[in-house]
Amino acid sequence: MKLINSISRMATLVKILRKEGKTIGFVPTMGYLHVGHMSLVKAAKKHTDVVVLSIFVNPLQFGPKEDFKKYPRDIKRDEALAGDAGVDIMFCPSVSEIYPEGYATYVNVENFTDKLCGISRPEHFKGVATVVAKLFNIVKPDVAYFGQKDVQQAIVIKKMARDLNMDIEIKAMPIIRESDGLAMSSRNIYLSEAERREALVLNRSLEKASALTVAGERDSGKIIKEMKELISQKPMVKIDYVSIVDTKDLKDISVISGEALVAIAAIVGSTRLIDNVIVKA
Amino acid sequence: MKLINSISRMATLVKILRKEGKTIGFVPTMGYLHVGHMSLVKAAKKHTDVVVLSIFVNPLQFGPKEDFKKYPRDIKRDEALAGDAGVDIMFCPSVSEIYPEGYATYVNVENFTDKLCGISRPEHFKGVATVVAKLFNIVKPDVAYFGQKDVQQAIVIKKMARDLNMDIEIKAMPIIRESDGLAMSSRNIYLSEAERREALVLNRSLEKASALTVAGERDSGKIIKEMKELISQKPMVKIDYVSIVDTKDLKDISVISGEALVAIAAIVGSTRLIDNVIVKA
Repeated sequence: MKLINSISRMATLVKILRKEGKTIGFVPTMGYLHVGHMSLVKAAKKHTDVVVLSIFVNPLQFGPKEDFKKYPRDIKRDEALAGDAGVDIMFCPSVSEIYPEGYATYVNVENFTDKLCGISRPEHFKGVATVVAKLFNIVKPDVAYFGQKDVQQAIVIKKMARDLNMDIEIKAMPIIRESDGLAMSSRNIYLSEAERREALVLNRSLEKASALTVAGERDSGKIIKEMKELISQKPMVKIDYVSIVDTKDLKDISVISGEALVAIAAIVGSTRLIDNVIVKA
Repeated sequence: MKLINSISRMATLVKILRKEGKTIGFVPTMGYLHVGHMSLVKAAKKHTDVVVLSIFVNPLQFGPKEDFKKYPRDIKRDEALAGDAGVDIMFCPSVSEIYPEGYATYVNVENFTDKLCGISRPEHFKGVATVVAKLFNIVKPDVAYFGQKDVQQAIVIKKMARDLNMDIEIKAMPIIRESDGLAMSSRNIYLSEAERREALVLNRSLEKASALTVAGERDSGKIIKEMKELISQKPMVKIDYVSIVDTKDLKDISVISGEALVAIAAIVGSTRLIDNVIVKA
């Protein structure tokens, strides 16, 4: 596995790969890799010739009071994991090269970034779209892989790629969970043992939403109420939102018909966690 | 010359050209071609294998009270001119294909789009950056050519391309003028004969700025004052701005040292015209 830190070296390598007719699969991450990321690498390996995994903790997508500084970083550990998973190129650019002095250009997917997580994280998806647009231009992938756990991110990136005529296929891969059901996230290491136990209620409330839908419930309000009641039994879990929305435009749905996204965000102790499930009427 | 209307056909053709190892020169325009545009085509032909000229009157870059509807359009005439100039592909996408229903993604070069023309046209450069980002992704040029007459546009696009790591060289080509000195613009056809005569004061005021700088004047305020006095002698010409700014960040300069951009915008009758010159201390 090649480890590349410089943008120009990455771009040069991409040019060579392109000339050789190789297809490129891309897994952009913020590092501190876990099994969820590895599932994206596995999918990329299956469908493309060369797999590029990037690690970049993107300051632009963190709010001023968020955890940019303490976000877990361990490049040595990530390098071992990525190598074992069969990543061909690990791309780790520096913040100062991605956002040099005087940086000024931002990509925003309006109407998609002010909903769900966008309400409590108003600049988050603008930061995500901007850095992903940059990484796409550097890595020039044929296919890029995102985790369905960050469902709004996946939807925003899909929309951006389509709107800006980027010739890149965007794949959102299924959520990977710990054996107890907690959605995998680099932020899970922030949780104390007690918090971790209580955090399981997020997945359980989503399972409840699925079960209610299967049983014929179509009223979003009723489903959300039951989910909130379940979650409220755990004192360490503070709900940010529980929403049932259209998977295409993220607008609230009051009566479920067809596919709907049940999405949840909560602060557990001091850690913000998200999770979701797609239900079908 | 090939005339292409569909985005997917354009993208397919680009893929073929790329495979053949051809370099692509791109001249994005709003049509109603004139000698200024042709100078861009000439430059593109000199340096690249295939020249793509696009014609797209971009609604996103017109304000609600501006001239989107009446902007001059004549595809037949443009086709003849482009063919004569040696354009290989003329790309004329439709508004509904460029901005399909639900379009949501915008590119903005902050700090560069709220100055000069951006003050009276607040959404203009966001519209320009967005459509050019899209066209770049479709046409995938090696080099793109812009006219120095729209100097702020050229600077915004250069900044966008660099910030978003687009692997495209942006060239700003010299202003082409009518024999009487008026900067070429598709909007010049709006001018009555009398307006046209008075409009010449724009170029003359820029010549005055150049002459003053050559003579040793370094005080921007004094130069601007003399320019405004000259322009005020023409009752049909209403100044929008006369500014002397840094060519890199478009910030006002009070004392000229090194290179400075003298830029002017004025409403002549009901037609908004712009012009500029670069002076050197």
